[in-house]
Amino acid sequence: MKIESKEYRTIWFDEQTQIVKIIDQTKLPHQFKVKDLKTVKDAINAIKTMEVRGAPLIGGTAAYGIVLAVLENSDFNFIKQSSEDLINSRPTAINLKWAVDRMIKKLSEINMDQILNTALSEAKKICDEDEKSCQKIGSHGLKIIEDIYNKKKETVNILTHCNAGWLATINWGTATSPIYYAHKKGIPIHVWVDETRPRNQGANLTSYELNEEGVANTIIADNTGGILMQRGDVDLCIVGTDRTLSTGDVCNKIGTYLKALAAYDNDIPFYVALPSSTIDWDIKNFKDIPIEERNSKELSHIEGLDEDSNLRSLLIYPKKSRALNLAFDVTPAKYVTGLITEKGVCEASNEALKKMFIK
Amino acid sequence: MKIESKEYRTIWFDEQTQIVKIIDQTKLPHQFKVKDLKTVKDAINAIKTMEVRGAPLIGGTAAYGIVLAVLENSDFNFIKQSSEDLINSRPTAINLKWAVDRMIKKLSEINMDQILNTALSEAKKICDEDEKSCQKIGSHGLKIIEDIYNKKKETVNILTHCNAGWLATINWGTATSPIYYAHKKGIPIHVWVDETRPRNQGANLTSYELNEEGVANTIIADNTGGILMQRGDVDLCIVGTDRTLSTGDVCNKIGTYLKALAAYDNDIPFYVALPSSTIDWDIKNFKDIPIEERNSKELSHIEGLDEDSNLRSLLIYPKKSRALNLAFDVTPAKYVTGLITEKGVCEASNEALKKMFIK
Repeated sequence: MKIESKEYRTIWFDEQTQIVKIIDQTKLPHQFKVKDLKTVKDAINAIKTMEVRGAPLIGGTAAYGIVLAVLENSDFNFIKQSSEDLINSRPTAINLKWAVDRMIKKLSEINMDQILNTALSEAKKICDEDEKSCQKIGSHGLKIIEDIYNKKKETVNILTHCNAGWLATINWGTATSPIYYAHKKGIPIHVWVDETRPRNQGANLTSYELNEEGVANTIIADNTGGILMQRGDVDLCIVGTDRTLSTGDVCNKIGTYLKALAAYDNDIPFYVALPSSTIDWDIKNFKDIPIEERNSKELSHIEGLDEDSNLRSLLIYPKKSRALNLAFDVTPAKYVTGLITEKGVCEASNEALKKMFIK
Repeated sequence: MKIESKEYRTIWFDEQTQIVKIIDQTKLPHQFKVKDLKTVKDAINAIKTMEVRGAPLIGGTAAYGIVLAVLENSDFNFIKQSSEDLINSRPTAINLKWAVDRMIKKLSEINMDQILNTALSEAKKICDEDEKSCQKIGSHGLKIIEDIYNKKKETVNILTHCNAGWLATINWGTATSPIYYAHKKGIPIHVWVDETRPRNQGANLTSYELNEEGVANTIIADNTGGILMQRGDVDLCIVGTDRTLSTGDVCNKIGTYLKALAAYDNDIPFYVALPSSTIDWDIKNFKDIPIEERNSKELSHIEGLDEDSNLRSLLIYPKKSRALNLAFDVTPAKYVTGLITEKGVCEASNEALKKMFIK
């Protein structure tokens, strides 16, 4: 997708310099900076400090982290140690371990003289597959938007929460992919972007990437979706997910559940876009999902630009106050109209998911 | 209530200096400053710039504004002109016009030699009546909290949104009054304080005043209430209201509706505390309530303390982004467990409201 009119992916390998390049997402939206990853330590650091974030992009970065390890030292002990360090950089991200394990398995099957080329081609393959998966989500989700547009014949208003955009993946995104597909097809789209406190990924990333791609959007406080739905100003909600239970319950960024309740109360379709890799076939009861508690400083402090365009951090809470920072909530399946996956759109239910993915 | 261990009301008259004193709420929670209002223009300015806010406190300030006008110039034309200027300082606040009209009516009935004493005693009466009304809300709401405590025998967790605290009234508050009553009675209370974007009155004012009064509280992002209710960490919600329809529908700070939906979905009682002066007996359909749209800078910019404890403002959104700032939403009566009024607790319905207030 585009930033400042130039096409990017979120991660790529520069053949000439043998350096991995990423967009430093901690500086967005205020500064656009491409960053070099030269060593596996750089890759680990990028994941830890959230310069890259979003499960698919973390997976891609970990894969390229193995490439960097190979470039540094092709001794297999070093590569194995690096793979463990990578997996430990953000232990809760499912794609991370999956990508590293896949790289290591591949490398253990080939001759040492092919190790660099194999690592490179496998990392590229992991990224290409993710892009392909997002494109399929886009083309399946497009039909939902088209149906609404064909009935309404006016701008389709879509509400999204957090960033399940191309910046969270290799390209296209999950929740945003149907939006980009519709936009490229000429369907008039307007996106309500939930600010998404406390990390403001909606404002910082989703609105930013929609701006750069030329998709009309308006940031709203997380509190605002309800009244917009009551007024008829939302035609459709599409969000991403961090973990989808086989029951159809959806664990996503904190606040998703509240929007699903409002959509249900106002008869507005509420879709969740996901690659099937995020389906958790093990946990049966959503109350068993561990909910990450993050540092309360993400609430009490905020970054932005001062009058002189310097990035600064401010304390915005009373000094004596405590804060609790839970990162996710769970939207029960009954509030989810459907799941948009790379294989098609299905009901948020165990039967439908089994039928689509297990057979 | 207490700030830095000293008892305050939000507005008072200093007999010796003949000056009206307020707490400058634009500086809270970072700086506690008592401000002098010496002229009716000072009072108008305090209302316009939201140094005082909350319908009851705006009413009280307007009443004392008339006192200041009388002190400046007891000519009735000047006082009449001042009353109009006061009413126009924030035209949507119902209490403002009500308080000014009451002052003018009183002053027009007496001899000119009694005008200052009459103005002073009427302004004090308006404030005293508001305090009394809040106290009654507190004692009626206390029973709801006591019932929960008597069953649970553990800390009662109460969620509130925005600031319907003593800082929005003359003293005690509306939603907070039952909380203060319970706390003073020794019932262990913990309050989940919704940050309340975009103006953050929950964090800036509610958490601040609860801290100062010694009531345990934790600030959460507006997104967080849902998962806390799913987990069983909320026993009760109490919020305020800006306008309550005679149907029982409640218009309050944006985001209230989302919390009511979550409470309903998790079988948690959701109460609205209000003085009967905020009941709108005219509008029948909540879709006819005008929803104030405020400056989008309240979303895109934020104030806080930098490392050197200086108050600063930062831009927190992408430069190209638009934002929409709606101030209120409507919670349909079916999601409201009950209304806590100065006359007692009643169902959120036309029949119950009529029975309690009209007979």
